[in-house]
Amino acid sequence: MKKLRYGIISASSIVPRFVSALNETKHSLVHAIGSSTLKRSEKLAKKLDIPNAYGSYEEVYTDPEVDVVYIANINDQHFEQIMKALSHKKHVLCEKPMVLTREHAQQAFAFAKEQGVFLMEAQKAAFLPTTNFVKEAIESKKYGELKQIQISASYANRFPDDHWMYQKHQGGALFGSGSYIIETLLVLLDNPSYEYQAMTHLGQSGEIDDVSIQFNFNKDLLVSTHLSTRVHTENVANFYFEQASISINDFWKSRKLRVDYHDNEDHDVMKFPNIPEMVYEINHVYDCIHEGLTESPIMSPEITMNTASLVEEIYKTTV
Amino acid sequence: MKKLRYGIISASSIVPRFVSALNETKHSLVHAIGSSTLKRSEKLAKKLDIPNAYGSYEEVYTDPEVDVVYIANINDQHFEQIMKALSHKKHVLCEKPMVLTREHAQQAFAFAKEQGVFLMEAQKAAFLPTTNFVKEAIESKKYGELKQIQISASYANRFPDDHWMYQKHQGGALFGSGSYIIETLLVLLDNPSYEYQAMTHLGQSGEIDDVSIQFNFNKDLLVSTHLSTRVHTENVANFYFEQASISINDFWKSRKLRVDYHDNEDHDVMKFPNIPEMVYEINHVYDCIHEGLTESPIMSPEITMNTASLVEEIYKTTV
Repeated sequence: MKKLRYGIISASSIVPRFVSALNETKHSLVHAIGSSTLKRSEKLAKKLDIPNAYGSYEEVYTDPEVDVVYIANINDQHFEQIMKALSHKKHVLCEKPMVLTREHAQQAFAFAKEQGVFLMEAQKAAFLPTTNFVKEAIESKKYGELKQIQISASYANRFPDDHWMYQKHQGGALFGSGSYIIETLLVLLDNPSYEYQAMTHLGQSGEIDDVSIQFNFNKDLLVSTHLSTRVHTENVANFYFEQASISINDFWKSRKLRVDYHDNEDHDVMKFPNIPEMVYEINHVYDCIHEGLTESPIMSPEITMNTASLVEEIYKTTV
Repeated sequence: MKKLRYGIISASSIVPRFVSALNETKHSLVHAIGSSTLKRSEKLAKKLDIPNAYGSYEEVYTDPEVDVVYIANINDQHFEQIMKALSHKKHVLCEKPMVLTREHAQQAFAFAKEQGVFLMEAQKAAFLPTTNFVKEAIESKKYGELKQIQISASYANRFPDDHWMYQKHQGGALFGSGSYIIETLLVLLDNPSYEYQAMTHLGQSGEIDDVSIQFNFNKDLLVSTHLSTRVHTENVANFYFEQASISINDFWKSRKLRVDYHDNEDHDVMKFPNIPEMVYEINHVYDCIHEGLTESPIMSPEITMNTASLVEEIYKTTV
C-alpha cells in the first residue's frame, strides 16, 4: 500500500505536534493543510514543510490525493467537518472530543460505515505504551486484581478571554479534558458497564471549569476522577492493584511509568521510546485502514458514543 | 491547676501510642486503665507503667482521682461508655468515630453540657501543625484562593476474619477512616456548608470496604476523596491553591508537608517537631478544661454531628 496522505483541517495549535508525529511514521505523511484563510495555511505549511496549502476546508476534501482527513478545529465544528469529509469518502481522524452529543456520534459512525471509510476519535492516550502496560497488567493480573483508580487532569487556563475554551457549550474542563480521562478508563477496562456521579463548578462564562466524577465500573471498581481548568494540579493516574501500584504522570502523553510494590519499598520505572506520542495513534489508523476497517477495535465507536453521552448528560445538568 | 489524670477505657492497640503521647505532655498523665479482664489491664499497665489497673470500665469511672476518661474501645460501644463516664462527671475524650449516629452525638454533647464537663471526639488530625499550616494558608490566602482538594486514606486490611472491622455496622473504610477525611476537611474549612455524593463497595461481610465521596463545599470548592480497606494506596492530601500546592503524606499523623510553587519548579519542605502526634490533641484538651469549656471550639460538636450524619446517611444506602 502506498503511504497514507493526510489533509489537515485548521491551523490550530495541535497541528505542529501532529505533523511532527506524522513525519516519524513510516507509512503516513502530511499532504495538505486547509484553514479559513490562505495566509494562515501558507504560513503554517511553510513552517512545517507541508506541500499544499488551501484557503478553505473544501479544497482539502476535494483533493484526490488526500486519503485521510485530520480534523483539528474547534469542538463545535467537528461534526459538520466530519460529515463533509466522509461525504467525499475520505477516512477521518478527528480530535477529541470528536462530537458534543451521542446523536452526532451515532450519525457520524453510521455514515462512515455507509461510505466504507474509516472514522476514529483521536484519543492518543488509548494507544500509548504506558496505557498498554496498564491494560496488560489488568488482564494478566500480574499484580493481582485492580482494586482502585485515582486519576486527574487539570491545568490553569491562560487563554485570552474570548477563546472558545470559555464557551460553555464546547469549552472548559469537561469538554476540554473529560474525554482524556473517561476514554482512557473505558479503553483500559474494555468498555465496561458503569454508574457515575458528577459534581461541577462553573467559570465566569458558565463553562464547567471544574468537575469531579466518580465511577463504579462493573459494579466492582470505584474510581475517583477530577478535572479542572481552575487551577494547576498534579496530573497523575494511579492504578492500585492488590500487590502493586502503577502511577503515570501526564498519562495522556507520558513516556514512562512507575510500579511500586506493596510488599517492600521497591519500585521499578519503565521507560518507553522518546517519540512524539501521537505516532502510536497514527500507526493504529494506518493498520486499520490497511485492513479495510471502518472503525477501530480499540478506540471504538461505542467508547466515543458512551463518552459523548456522559459528557452531554453532565453538561445538561448545568444549563 | 494540678495535672489532668487520665483513665483509659480498653486495652486496644491505640492505647500504647496514646500513653506515650500523654507522657510527653507537661500537664496530663495516665492514672488508670480498665478493660474487661483484670489480666489484660494488668499486663498493659505493667508494660506502659500505668499506676492502676482495673478489671472493669466501672472502676475507672468511679475512681475519684480520674479527671478525664479516654475511650478507645470498639466503635459501637463508644456511646454507652461516653454516657456512663459523663454520668460520673468525668471529662471525656473519645476515639473516632465518636458515635455512629447523629442522634447519639446530639445526646452525648447535650449530656456533657448538662453535667458541666468536657467532651470531644479524638480527631488528632484537627490539631496537627501540618493541619494548622494549611488552615492558615487558606485563611491568609498567602498562596491565593484554595481551588481544589484531593485526599485519600486507604490501607489493605490484615485483621483476623472475626475482627470488628468486618462488622458492617461499625467497621470497614467508612467507619474506620471516614472521619479522618471528613473531619479534617470540616476543621480546615470552618464547618462549611456542603453537598456531597458517595459511592460504596461492599466487602465480604457487607461492610463498606471502599467509598469515594465528592464534596462541593460552600458551593465553590470541589473535593475528591477516596477511602478504602480493599487495597493499599498512597495516602495523600493535596491542597491546590492558585499559586502553590500543599501535599501531606499520611495527613492524620504527618510531621512534615511540601509546598510546590506553580510559577517555577521550586518547592519547600516544612518539618515539625518529631513528637507523638496525639500530643497536640491532648494539649488542646488540657487548654479547654483549664478554661472551663464543655466543648472544643476546633473539634466542635457541630463537626462531630455533621460527620456522624454523613457517615450514617452513606451507611444507610447500603443496608
